[in-house]
Amino acid sequence: MSMLFERVAFIGIGLIGSSLARRIRRDGLAREIVACARSRETLDKVMALGLADRVGADPAAAVAGADLVVIATPLSAYADIGRRIGPALAPGAIVTDVGSVKSSAVRDLQPLLPASVRFVAGHPVAGTEHSGPESGFAELFEGRWCILTPVNGVDAEAVARLRQLWEAAGSKVVEMDPEHHDRVLAIVSHLPHLIAYTIVDTATNLEKDLQSEVIEFSASGFRDFTRIAASDPVMWRDVFLANREAVLEMLQRFTEDLTALQRAIRRGEADKLQEVFTRTRAIRRAIIEAKQA
Amino acid sequence: MSMLFERVAFIGIGLIGSSLARRIRRDGLAREIVACARSRETLDKVMALGLADRVGADPAAAVAGADLVVIATPLSAYADIGRRIGPALAPGAIVTDVGSVKSSAVRDLQPLLPASVRFVAGHPVAGTEHSGPESGFAELFEGRWCILTPVNGVDAEAVARLRQLWEAAGSKVVEMDPEHHDRVLAIVSHLPHLIAYTIVDTATNLEKDLQSEVIEFSASGFRDFTRIAASDPVMWRDVFLANREAVLEMLQRFTEDLTALQRAIRRGEADKLQEVFTRTRAIRRAIIEAKQA
Repeated sequence: MSMLFERVAFIGIGLIGSSLARRIRRDGLAREIVACARSRETLDKVMALGLADRVGADPAAAVAGADLVVIATPLSAYADIGRRIGPALAPGAIVTDVGSVKSSAVRDLQPLLPASVRFVAGHPVAGTEHSGPESGFAELFEGRWCILTPVNGVDAEAVARLRQLWEAAGSKVVEMDPEHHDRVLAIVSHLPHLIAYTIVDTATNLEKDLQSEVIEFSASGFRDFTRIAASDPVMWRDVFLANREAVLEMLQRFTEDLTALQRAIRRGEADKLQEVFTRTRAIRRAIIEAKQA
Repeated sequence: MSMLFERVAFIGIGLIGSSLARRIRRDGLAREIVACARSRETLDKVMALGLADRVGADPAAAVAGADLVVIATPLSAYADIGRRIGPALAPGAIVTDVGSVKSSAVRDLQPLLPASVRFVAGHPVAGTEHSGPESGFAELFEGRWCILTPVNGVDAEAVARLRQLWEAAGSKVVEMDPEHHDRVLAIVSHLPHLIAYTIVDTATNLEKDLQSEVIEFSASGFRDFTRIAASDPVMWRDVFLANREAVLEMLQRFTEDLTALQRAIRRGEADKLQEVFTRTRAIRRAIIEAKQA
């Protein structure tokens, strides 16, 4: 793979950032990597892991002279980062991010970036329940989607170069409107996470004698939820707040459907239950056919 | 492994029954296997797969002369099966089942069985989202729990022999009170399945343009739910109805917790969200330490 960028600056470098950095390093996709993080501990890890050529705590210093800037922090840090890097960005630089909510990313960053840079928000739909730069791996994006949400007539060349980068990282790239992205992710990702967090919390609040058994017998369904509910707390706090509208809408639909099933159970409506449980099998088959299983 | 039974009769032989039959066959745990199912198609499959020496549609004929009877049908068939096999059971025979709800199993079967047989309800906590005799495999129970729920002073030898059988099948065996079993399973298995069915149903009811994207981007959380929600509809219909009280209790707790999180999202209470999401990580660690992950 040929070199795509001269200098890539990562602002924030946890699971996603470090995985992309590893891939860039492994395949020589950039000449130089600069990493910026708030904590000394993270910066030390990044250097020890050999993920960057230079590290530092100052975002403005990190982006100076970079032709690609990747923002990979929790969403709540975006506005502050935008303010700090805006004046330091090189003219023509491409700025992107990897956050799970795209309308808030555009809203928080776009107004703070100079007209001379090209901002294209992005979302690699990949991850694990682990966090931190030590959890990343170069193959994380292999075969997974990366959604780009360009707006405001950003130039096509910037989009094309980001597409090249993510394809080089193994991803399938698709473009989408930010608001549409946020609705799709609300149902396929944000609501499932919220529900998983909730049921694990419910189990945590049970009487003590039930709790140890919940752990022993977790393999019967509960376990899948605990994996999801072990995801990074700060990242997910920000996702729910940044995508509040779409999450609350999907949650409302879910609650209605759950209430209908609760009612069917209470009333002993066997046919209604069987009908719903039969219908839900079809979507699993569709996922298997789409090779996403 | 030495032979434990002379003749085992399976009443119903889907995923669970056929997996146990395969294991018994593979390891020579019984001299003869008889299988009973309602549909000709299932019986033909069982013969073609070589899972039984004899098959038939009449439960009474199937249990005649058997020293072990394993009921492995959906729970709603239990009472009818009890009525039909009761008069045909050999004195001293051990009768067990593999259903996911145990107080209803005891309630439905116990009164219909003659005093000369020994009834010990059981629940191998194992499964996949596939169903039917063709989906079973001999290793299904390897390392998994099997819960026995003996009541009414059933003789210890019957419990000991079932324990031997399940241990021979690879399971870890534990004894529990039927009502306690049903509360534990309500939270670790039944509620997770109900929620998974619900969210997949919610997604199914979305506008058509969102649906194809739900399938494409399912890997970001939703996919885990679709696997659970592809489980056998009839079996699960029966589980929810048979364990109604415990499921509704756990569902009520879940709904309260979900409503609290919904409120926190609507009000932008970041600290509250982060606190819950941090707490839920601990139970995942406990599951990993208990080697159930």
